[in-house]
Amino acid sequence: MEQRRTCKSQMEAARSGEITAEVREAARFEGIEPALLRDMIASGTAALPANRRHLKLEPRAVGRKLKTKINVNMGTSRDIEDAEGELEKVRLAEKLGAHALMDLSSAGDTRRLRRTIIETSPLMIGTVPAYDTVARANKPLREITSDDWIESVRLHAEDGVDFQTIHAGLTKRLAEEIIQRSKTGARLTGLVSRGGSLLFAWMAETGKENPYYERFDEVLAICAEHEVTVSLGDSCRPGSTADSSDGAQIGELIVLGDLVQRARKAGVQTIVEGPGHMALDEIEANMAIARRLCGDAPFYVLGPLTTDIAPGYDHITAAIGGAVAAAAGAAFLCYVTPAEHLRLPTLEDVREGIIASVIAAHSADIAKGVPGARDRDDRMSRARQNLDWEQMFTLAVDPEKARLYRSQSEPSEKDSCTMCGKLCAVRNVNRVISGEASDVL
Amino acid sequence: MEQRRTCKSQMEAARSGEITAEVREAARFEGIEPALLRDMIASGTAALPANRRHLKLEPRAVGRKLKTKINVNMGTSRDIEDAEGELEKVRLAEKLGAHALMDLSSAGDTRRLRRTIIETSPLMIGTVPAYDTVARANKPLREITSDDWIESVRLHAEDGVDFQTIHAGLTKRLAEEIIQRSKTGARLTGLVSRGGSLLFAWMAETGKENPYYERFDEVLAICAEHEVTVSLGDSCRPGSTADSSDGAQIGELIVLGDLVQRARKAGVQTIVEGPGHMALDEIEANMAIARRLCGDAPFYVLGPLTTDIAPGYDHITAAIGGAVAAAAGAAFLCYVTPAEHLRLPTLEDVREGIIASVIAAHSADIAKGVPGARDRDDRMSRARQNLDWEQMFTLAVDPEKARLYRSQSEPSEKDSCTMCGKLCAVRNVNRVISGEASDVL
Repeated sequence: MEQRRTCKSQMEAARSGEITAEVREAARFEGIEPALLRDMIASGTAALPANRRHLKLEPRAVGRKLKTKINVNMGTSRDIEDAEGELEKVRLAEKLGAHALMDLSSAGDTRRLRRTIIETSPLMIGTVPAYDTVARANKPLREITSDDWIESVRLHAEDGVDFQTIHAGLTKRLAEEIIQRSKTGARLTGLVSRGGSLLFAWMAETGKENPYYERFDEVLAICAEHEVTVSLGDSCRPGSTADSSDGAQIGELIVLGDLVQRARKAGVQTIVEGPGHMALDEIEANMAIARRLCGDAPFYVLGPLTTDIAPGYDHITAAIGGAVAAAAGAAFLCYVTPAEHLRLPTLEDVREGIIASVIAAHSADIAKGVPGARDRDDRMSRARQNLDWEQMFTLAVDPEKARLYRSQSEPSEKDSCTMCGKLCAVRNVNRVISGEASDVL
Repeated sequence: MEQRRTCKSQMEAARSGEITAEVREAARFEGIEPALLRDMIASGTAALPANRRHLKLEPRAVGRKLKTKINVNMGTSRDIEDAEGELEKVRLAEKLGAHALMDLSSAGDTRRLRRTIIETSPLMIGTVPAYDTVARANKPLREITSDDWIESVRLHAEDGVDFQTIHAGLTKRLAEEIIQRSKTGARLTGLVSRGGSLLFAWMAETGKENPYYERFDEVLAICAEHEVTVSLGDSCRPGSTADSSDGAQIGELIVLGDLVQRARKAGVQTIVEGPGHMALDEIEANMAIARRLCGDAPFYVLGPLTTDIAPGYDHITAAIGGAVAAAAGAAFLCYVTPAEHLRLPTLEDVREGIIASVIAAHSADIAKGVPGARDRDDRMSRARQNLDWEQMFTLAVDPEKARLYRSQSEPSEKDSCTMCGKLCAVRNVNRVISGEASDVL
């Protein structure tokens, strides 16, 4: 397989002062000086996931001081093995402005789908090798070997995956703690991380230590060789607001922080994954603690969902939590769809999930003061002030939906809408300011 | 028309130490001591809108230290005069757990619809007399008299309206400032308040002062007589993130704060209305400033929408801003539908808007530590841990949608879903904790 570059890794290059082509392109996307981004990558406060074999990649960096990035999950499941349907989600993610894509396939010919995506998509591609270890196994869980878990990392690295979720933080000690906390009722929803639960079950059945933790240096060596960014999975992610910020979650974060330091020493870029379900009043504190414990490594959150009672609407609970998290320092938002907790998302679910994430990320970027973040908003506001509907549609996050909504309800006054008609505030105030009489009556 | 009580107003009764039947019922809903609520009402930090003629009312109080309340707007427009359709929205608001309903009708037989709603709905009913002044007028705007504007307040009070938005803050001086700020470009989206714009146009055409400001004592006398809560409208509400927290918005808030004090002296309960479009990083500060300027009067926000670019999804931008605002002290959320900025909402738009508001308010109540707020979440989390799908549906904000989503995608493993099937984390961890082997493979 062809490789883009074979010399230094992004982190090594950055540390030696070099500005790579990828850094240059990612900096251009941010609208910042390449040297600034290079320094963030050198220190590990930004990551630029770019596997040498992902030739189609349009490089993007992830970091607290950069534009908030969005990830879209897709992938086959045992119940729905429709690779073509999953590829449609890839195309939709590209179209709607996602920055990354995680292929979470757990059934069918996972390698073929993964390679197809890497060959065709410019988005950063992530995977979870633990899922694929189980998907590829033709034997009982307990017969999976420590080598098998590691082998998936190598396989995905060779295939050109840009970042891999490695569930290295769930040590045997933490797994035992989860059992205790569950039995005493101190933790309401034990483990809700799929990858974490697989390792948890494997450790219980074999009595062995988590191979990703025990052999983390080997994982790092593979990732260094193929230039894979390690995304440290949070197996103890809270699955309920009742469990957020508990000893298990924060205990694992301490382990992840130590692993970040080991990865940095090995010249491997890292991202740290975070919650989960979490009440609104805990989010800022969590972002600050994660920043401190993990050396300001880019923090990648799933949600957080600010209430547990909204299945069917968790794109909204996640948009609330995600906007607040990103404004407080989360660098990377994993989208959540309305199907969360209910089913594998359909294409329409994926659309709604992406747009909610785009809104959350953009709201955070305005709040963070990302340079130029509000330009599009200001253009939209000017279009509104001018009652320029075509321009409003063009600037909307979803021009099709905006256009459809209006077309389904045509106003008698062409410049207004059916909410207000001639009573439109903008219309009247414009007339008054320009010296005309209003025509409300 | 029959009246519920003819003695003291809620505020007078509270100040004399009396606990009215309405206070008792509203306190029961909150799960707090009636005396505590009575004291909030006496000081004006909570409002209990309850027109004596609204016999069907189930009394609810609005205040920073209470459960966050939700308002649903409905009403006919000139383009869509379908009173029956609007009544369906009323029933939906009741069903989905809204607390208040504003009838914003601006066309057709507005009085008949208003009276029907008051006769049949237990929700707090609000109106905007400025709209109705124009809807009822059979003459050019400039021929509407100062008396006409005031007359609508009396009419609505007599009809049994519980709270009225009175646009008293837009003084002639502020209106002139809006013109200046718009001409210099200091303000991007002049006025976006419909009621405010009507008074703005009227003042421009007649040269007169805002009658609601000039004759505020008369307004208070009417409201005192009929026990109407004054909701002080924010005509200078920012219509874009570019305009938020600007001199016009805050300048008007200063006027509203003074009017709150006058109302309190007159024994009239008040609510203060607020933004609008506003970036996430300004919301907390705005809640604190409003609290100080307006003597901790219940603050009633429309959104805030945290970005301008999401027409078709403003229920989501408003859920983000509303959750943050309510967690920071806003007492009352006006719902926003996906149709905002595009058309009069359909019934389906109303449904989506209400549920997004319910999610925002509930997320805030958890964050604020409202007693018992998280109980339903914990029950949901327990149901998830037990893979008890029926219980999950029962506890969901929208059981129908949750059930539909799952039914459209039946899993092969009945206790899991099509996302994970046998790889379900909860399923496996439960098996391991109870000593069974996992059956992922």
